[in-house]
Amino acid sequence: MQKTPKSLRLHIALFGRTNVGKSSFLNLIAGQDVSIVSEQAGTTTDVVEKPMELLPIGPVVFLDTAGIDDATALGEKRIDRTGRVFDRADVILLLHEGSEITAFETSVIKKAEEKEIPVVHIANKVDLFPVGATCMSPVQCNSCDFSSRDSVLAALKAELINVCPDEFLTPPPLIGDLVKPGGLAMLIVPIDLQAPKGRLILPQVSTIRDALDHDAATLVCKEREYAHMLSMLNRKPDVAICDSQMVLKMVADTPPEIPCTTFSILFARLKGDLRKFAMGAAAIDRLEPGDKVLIAESCSHHALEDDIGRVKIPRWLRQYVGIDLEVDVYAGHDFPDNLSEYKLAVQCGGCMQNRREVLSRIEKCEAAGVPITNYGLCIAQTQGVLRRVLSPFPAALAAYDEVTK
Amino acid sequence: MQKTPKSLRLHIALFGRTNVGKSSFLNLIAGQDVSIVSEQAGTTTDVVEKPMELLPIGPVVFLDTAGIDDATALGEKRIDRTGRVFDRADVILLLHEGSEITAFETSVIKKAEEKEIPVVHIANKVDLFPVGATCMSPVQCNSCDFSSRDSVLAALKAELINVCPDEFLTPPPLIGDLVKPGGLAMLIVPIDLQAPKGRLILPQVSTIRDALDHDAATLVCKEREYAHMLSMLNRKPDVAICDSQMVLKMVADTPPEIPCTTFSILFARLKGDLRKFAMGAAAIDRLEPGDKVLIAESCSHHALEDDIGRVKIPRWLRQYVGIDLEVDVYAGHDFPDNLSEYKLAVQCGGCMQNRREVLSRIEKCEAAGVPITNYGLCIAQTQGVLRRVLSPFPAALAAYDEVTK
Repeated sequence: MQKTPKSLRLHIALFGRTNVGKSSFLNLIAGQDVSIVSEQAGTTTDVVEKPMELLPIGPVVFLDTAGIDDATALGEKRIDRTGRVFDRADVILLLHEGSEITAFETSVIKKAEEKEIPVVHIANKVDLFPVGATCMSPVQCNSCDFSSRDSVLAALKAELINVCPDEFLTPPPLIGDLVKPGGLAMLIVPIDLQAPKGRLILPQVSTIRDALDHDAATLVCKEREYAHMLSMLNRKPDVAICDSQMVLKMVADTPPEIPCTTFSILFARLKGDLRKFAMGAAAIDRLEPGDKVLIAESCSHHALEDDIGRVKIPRWLRQYVGIDLEVDVYAGHDFPDNLSEYKLAVQCGGCMQNRREVLSRIEKCEAAGVPITNYGLCIAQTQGVLRRVLSPFPAALAAYDEVTK
Repeated sequence: MQKTPKSLRLHIALFGRTNVGKSSFLNLIAGQDVSIVSEQAGTTTDVVEKPMELLPIGPVVFLDTAGIDDATALGEKRIDRTGRVFDRADVILLLHEGSEITAFETSVIKKAEEKEIPVVHIANKVDLFPVGATCMSPVQCNSCDFSSRDSVLAALKAELINVCPDEFLTPPPLIGDLVKPGGLAMLIVPIDLQAPKGRLILPQVSTIRDALDHDAATLVCKEREYAHMLSMLNRKPDVAICDSQMVLKMVADTPPEIPCTTFSILFARLKGDLRKFAMGAAAIDRLEPGDKVLIAESCSHHALEDDIGRVKIPRWLRQYVGIDLEVDVYAGHDFPDNLSEYKLAVQCGGCMQNRREVLSRIEKCEAAGVPITNYGLCIAQTQGVLRRVLSPFPAALAAYDEVTK
């Protein structure tokens, strides 16, 4: 079952003094979403490898140092034995006993600094800030209640997303898996082209390029010409992709046997987590009068008269649910620290953001219990065509159906 | 015949003292290439309007002030009478008598400065730098021999291109006139995509956008998929466009009834003068051993191992003419002042340059009697397919046939 080569797994070395809760921690995250694939007793390293699937990062392997860390200080002998762990670790995970920093934690931190390995600090919540405790600065710990799996998972994922090397946040293809080599994707772009004169907007360019990189072609047309262009083909295209704002027309013009979706949904997958966004879209139906909705618009473009984030999505949401809603808009890299007042977050396509930032927002929302979706899914839901435009993505469609059944 | 509305003509007010040669000047440039369309006697302005076609700028109208400038100074009364000329002029053309600056020239320059109208200075060559003459700085005159039409025209055009407002250098459409509304252009891009990951190079993006702006579609594919994509269509595309480096394969794969050309040739028209570039390409066949060729590469990109300007074009040129050639490469905005040693200049597509700069280079080459062409035309000529890829452009093809017959 362990199909991913080890070098493609994120190697997380787990350190912590005896009784800090390493076993509880690992057992807790090895819950229903996270399956321990196999355990291999370390023969030469005194380290036990515990491979897991830890979405959205994917395959990880915990290097459990239970066998070598049962001391309060990391002596010279122990440094030799852990040297090989530091050589293999992409990330160090250091479990703290509350706010206490002993010679053990200091040694691990120093060694990690020498090797330039990022350290994730997790502290048992109970003792984190005892009255009179010395501030642990500069080490910042993410505290979590070890009795709550959600708390542990959310803290871990949020920190891992922040520190893990870029290649472990590698996204799925933008469109490459939706077109066959030699196949064709129809790209339908707005008549009121928003890009500056002579240009196309980034999602369109990226999609054309990704198709070419996968030996496929794209036919780029405006929505008015789309049906006509379909009639020029003597074979079905593999997929049709449109700007979210014309999703109703695309669905109407696309024969049922041709999969179709939107640029924004392609980017939901590329930059975020389409399954979670699909479940978040279902939460739109549960909104109640006066609920607050957070809209996160990453482009800091000048607000247009009929701005998609500030005007159109709030209007479509209100029309769809038939009740009034409060809407806050955060632009650029702004994102609220306190999410508890929101019943829904709607993230833009994120074409100008990196995957790390969008994934981090998703984890923050999840930790706060706030459903999060993206522009494309939100628009498709309010237009009543979300299942149709999720059809190219069976896992996301299944997740959506599961929460709406 | 005067079909262009006057407001779209470049208005050039012609000033100069009596006997400086205004009439000779106008008569000279109104030669075979430049037709005086009509003359209208000024009734209220004392100005005669002389519309002409002055390529590459296009329609211009000279405001001939012969009736009001027959004095050595521009007195108060005269300023009133010429005020309306200054209100209408896009450019002032001031003819100088050698290096002499009298109160008349000073008045014209001052008035032009007040109105923020650019001034083109042309001086009769004969007296330009008489021994002991005072330097005319800061006024720089372009000197020309009034007995030589080529000299006058080249000097005038070079200066007009430099100073005229942007809108008078408006290019033809990139591809919009080669596709019908609802039509389709095939775009064939290299398998070794040169653009950074996730991007397309500017000529491709601009072409897709221009087709959309003209209600047409583009089918973007790699050269390996091109024939297959043609077979997926049940109607002919309007045109096929390829990267210059695969022009032979495109011509081989394109049925004769489908017009085809290259991105570089589209840009030769957009940024330069396709007719002149076509005539310049014909000069390749007249190169002789040891001739020097100037290659002007506008992108200051890092030279690749098999760089198109530095390696491939020199190699293809030498292979085609079967003799050795000396090749100089100028990059970025560099362009030699002394062109006389060159037998041919080859300009890149110029997608990063403005039209003013490329047109200016063409005029400099023409003034120096150096044929100039561009990368796309040069490559097509050395591959033996130039007539085929000029077929969408009848005027350029006719000019090429005229000089090669």
